[in-house]
Formats: sequence, C-alpha cells, structure tokens
Amino acid sequence: MSDTHNLSTLIDALRRLPGVGAKSAARMAFHMLQHDREGAQLLSRALSEAVQKVRHCSRCYTFTEAEVCSTCLDAERDATKLCVVETPADQSALERTSAYRGLYFVLMGKLSPLDGIGPKEIGLHRLLERACDGVVTEVILATNFTAEGETTAHVIAQTLKARGLQVTRLARGVPAGSELEYVDLGTIAHALVDRR
Amino acid sequence: MSDTHNLSTLIDALRRLPGVGAKSAARMAFHMLQHDREGAQLLSRALSEAVQKVRHCSRCYTFTEAEVCSTCLDAERDATKLCVVETPADQSALERTSAYRGLYFVLMGKLSPLDGIGPKEIGLHRLLERACDGVVTEVILATNFTAEGETTAHVIAQTLKARGLQVTRLARGVPAGSELEYVDLGTIAHALVDRR
Repeated sequence: MSDTHNLSTLIDALRRLPGVGAKSAARMAFHMLQHDREGAQLLSRALSEAVQKVRHCSRCYTFTEAEVCSTCLDAERDATKLCVVETPADQSALERTSAYRGLYFVLMGKLSPLDGIGPKEIGLHRLLERACDGVVTEVILATNFTAEGETTAHVIAQTLKARGLQVTRLARGVPAGSELEYVDLGTIAHALVDRR
Repeated sequence: MSDTHNLSTLIDALRRLPGVGAKSAARMAFHMLQHDREGAQLLSRALSEAVQKVRHCSRCYTFTEAEVCSTCLDAERDATKLCVVETPADQSALERTSAYRGLYFVLMGKLSPLDGIGPKEIGLHRLLERACDGVVTEVILATNFTAEGETTAHVIAQTLKARGLQVTRLARGVPAGSELEYVDLGTIAHALVDRR
C-alpha cells in the first residue's frame, strides 16, 4: 500500500538485525509505533551516533571511540600477557571474573571457511604484529570451545609458536558447581586428560 | 567504560525492542557495527522517518501516512460491513484471504485489565462512533481466539448490540487440511456446537 511506505521500509530495515525475521520485524515496528515512539527515536539516534563514532582500537581491535581503548591504555595491566578472544562480549565475560590483568586482542570473529571468513578476515596479520611487539611473552587463546573456535585457536597457535611465542589455551574441564552425573562425556574426558 | 559510551547507549536502545534482552541487544549492536553499518544507518533513518510520518487512519485507526488509509478510501469496498481486528497484522492476514471486501476497524490492542488496558485504551469510543455512522449494518468481530481476544470480542459485542447493530464473530472450527486425530479437544467441541 502506498500509504504505508515508511512502515514497510521500517519493517525491511528491522529484518537486517540478526535473528529477526519477517514476523518479528513487523511486531517490533508495530510495538515501537504504537507504544514506544520515544524509544524508536532514541534507537534511531543511538544507531546513527554509534555508526559515526564507534571504531576499532588500533592496538586490540575491540570497539572503542578513541584511537586506543581504555584497557590498552591501562598502565596497571600486565603487558606481557595477551588474551585472544572472539568478540567484545567474550572480553567482558573474562573481565567480570577479575582473574586476568593482562591485555586483550579481539578477533571480531572466528575462522569459518564455509562463510568465507579466513585468516585475513579475522585479522591474523594484525594479531601477529601485535603479539610480536617485543613485550608480549605469553598469548592466551580464549576463543570459544566450539568447532570453529577450536580451529581458530589451532591456526593462531601454529602461527605464533613459529615466532617463538609461548601460546596457552584456557583449560577445558568440569564447570564449577556441576555434578559429574550431568556433565557431558566429552567434557569429562577432557577433564581427565588435563587433570592436575 | 567511557570510551564505549555510544555502544552502551545503542545496546540500551535496542533493548526497547519487544523480545530483545541484554544478550540479544549486545549481539545485534555487535553485528551491525562489525558487519552491517549500512543496515544500521538504514534502520536509523527508517525509524526516524516512520516516527515522523506514520499516524493513524482517522476512520479505521490502522497505520497510514495519509489522513484516511487507502482501504477506507476504496469505493469498491462494501461499506455496510465492518471487521474489527486487533492489529494491522491481523488485517493483512484477512486481506490475504481475498474472502472479505468490507471495511476494517483496527483496535491496536486488546482488552487486558491486568496490563491496564481497558475499553478506553483500545478506543472503544472510536469504534462505537465509527460503527454507528448509519452505513454499517454488520460488525464482524475478528479479534484473536485467545482469552483476551475473546473478552474483547464479548465486550464489543455487548456494546454494539445495545446500539441495534448486527454483530457476528469469525467461525470457530477445525482448521483446513487438519486431521481430527491431531486437533485439540476444545476446537473439536466448538466445531460440533457450531456445525452447519
């Protein structure tokens, strides 16, 4: 209908959000226009601001609005340790543990040849340059424990070890608070192999 | 972190979309900034345009950009029939059947006293005014067959019948293409009562 052109455009635009299909997009558009126009305006401004201002840290490649992010600039952090994660969300998860005081490198993705994401797309060259700055002595691989995350860790490990860096991987094992009876067999097997 | 202020604002704004929690919002923000900045800009513009231009049809209350929507203006439609639906999406579903050529009234909601949505919020006064225009002879209630939709239909029926209008309800029964064995008992019971 010609008199709902802007509504259709909005529904199409909402479908570009990950995990949002035709019905969800229509429901979202309907909700925002009927019940939360203020929220819609807020979101419109937030999107436009973020696109203009958010860029990548030139050292660790995470999202930031400065040339170098506040974590990389933090002089109290241990610059000899570099933890490699897939996404800023993974970095936040590690930060919340307060168990790590080194620096990070964010791949902003994972190797996924079927989707056309190779070493270049995850910035392996950037990581290599960063890790070989002469200060970093240990690279901790904290990519996810999925097939793609493991492959990514493997490829990075091969590349960095060839440069003489110490490369470690987060330990696999039984999650805290869990009962063995309910833990999957692969995890128990790994916990047995990596026992200490 | 102060250097990710715009990113946090974006995540908070995305959480105002229905069905989007903290993790989904972060994933959406991450995806748009990393892989689809063009889509983010598109969505920003679409939201702002829609908020500015989309309003309610003065006759049927559906979303439109004109004073009166194209459906209400369509002279070929049967103006003696008025079909009451909850949302524009329900209206679209009925339109797709091509089985109805009358006009519509869109409640933009349903009675839900627990959420503070009473007759005033769903515009019962507007519907009353619209249905009593002297042309409408039959009001077809096509609210959903949920508890709230049924309540809404019941309240509207009571109000309109008091004004001497003929009020009908979509038939309940066995869905087309279904096998009785797999149809729920409530539906079969209704189909028996409403047999023809």
